[in-house]
Amino acid sequence: MSRPILHSYFRSSTSFRLRIALNLKGVETDYVAHHLRLGEQRSEAFLSINPQGLVPALELADGTVLLQSMAIIEYLDETVPEPPLLPRDAAGRARVRGLAQMVACEIHPVNNLRILNDLKTRFGAHEDTVADWFRHWVAETFAPMEILLAQSPDTGTYCHGESPGLADICLVAQVINNQRFAVDMAPYSTIRRIHEACMQLPAFQQAAPANQPDAE
Amino acid sequence: MSRPILHSYFRSSTSFRLRIALNLKGVETDYVAHHLRLGEQRSEAFLSINPQGLVPALELADGTVLLQSMAIIEYLDETVPEPPLLPRDAAGRARVRGLAQMVACEIHPVNNLRILNDLKTRFGAHEDTVADWFRHWVAETFAPMEILLAQSPDTGTYCHGESPGLADICLVAQVINNQRFAVDMAPYSTIRRIHEACMQLPAFQQAAPANQPDAE
Repeated sequence: MSRPILHSYFRSSTSFRLRIALNLKGVETDYVAHHLRLGEQRSEAFLSINPQGLVPALELADGTVLLQSMAIIEYLDETVPEPPLLPRDAAGRARVRGLAQMVACEIHPVNNLRILNDLKTRFGAHEDTVADWFRHWVAETFAPMEILLAQSPDTGTYCHGESPGLADICLVAQVINNQRFAVDMAPYSTIRRIHEACMQLPAFQQAAPANQPDAE
Repeated sequence: MSRPILHSYFRSSTSFRLRIALNLKGVETDYVAHHLRLGEQRSEAFLSINPQGLVPALELADGTVLLQSMAIIEYLDETVPEPPLLPRDAAGRARVRGLAQMVACEIHPVNNLRILNDLKTRFGAHEDTVADWFRHWVAETFAPMEILLAQSPDTGTYCHGESPGLADICLVAQVINNQRFAVDMAPYSTIRRIHEACMQLPAFQQAAPANQPDAE
């Protein structure tokens, strides 16, 4: 794959997911930062690339623009097969995708910046109430996710066996996002253990928000 | 595939997605209804099957329980290849998954029943305010989705070419969900056209909420 352009924001949890996947696959990109708090993702130039005005987006050498972090990661997994981010068997793939989507379809969508801002403007919610909302929706999904991970013989050092994949990517990005809202991680010993194992790996470390060119 | 058990609720948009996919693939299931408004998905019996207490879930003959509608649909597509719900080329697959995830990761998660209920209890939101919230998040994503669909040569009778797939499944389930909140569909002529084409097909018609055994 020739060098694509990664449209990103250091603190965006979905951009973080994609950065981990790119690092695991060894795909180098040109990093273009869009400052979400300043609304830079809503510039005309970026909207012409991605009408949704969201990061991440991956702009390929031929001009194709890929949207939605999970779709882009699946594309990477199909075009750069090693190391695989999904198991080979269909049931294993369903398990890993299911765990990943517990974060991607249940927690993150209700806790991202534009939703939290909207709670403040629409309902006059205070910072504390917004933080309670954030923690509530993390707990609603992390509690069953912990059960699923702790009870399954498929769980290994990582969410599924002994190599990191799509579920670990989503888990880590969410755990790091949680730190900004002081989520109590005590009940989630398996999630914590997996997070710590992932953060030993350079691909995860180098993708972290603090290590991006636009980090504040 | 021997007859699996489909845990569903007639009005659940994510269950609707899975029902369409099962119909397209010709997979017959035993239908088990969980009445979300009565909290039946939180029964101990169901939590032992799915600790997340959400529908849909697909219980296979060997006892394996698959969670998360999008993960289950990908499983179906891998194990029952015809008709395919994703294109064969990686860029096409990324496009279809990206369109599907615009619904599955941006609109539906912030507009499902438990979120709307939480807005009422946490913020004292009135029905009208909740309906405004619903319509706002539909418009935030349907507007760029309409642009992406209208501008792309890959769009055909359906979201991608001449056969229905994963993006159409998500689109239709969302459009039907919108009807309960009187979303103005006038700005979305391509989305409307694709929705109407899909609803000509028995697989989509038979999956509709009104045609389920637990419909009220």
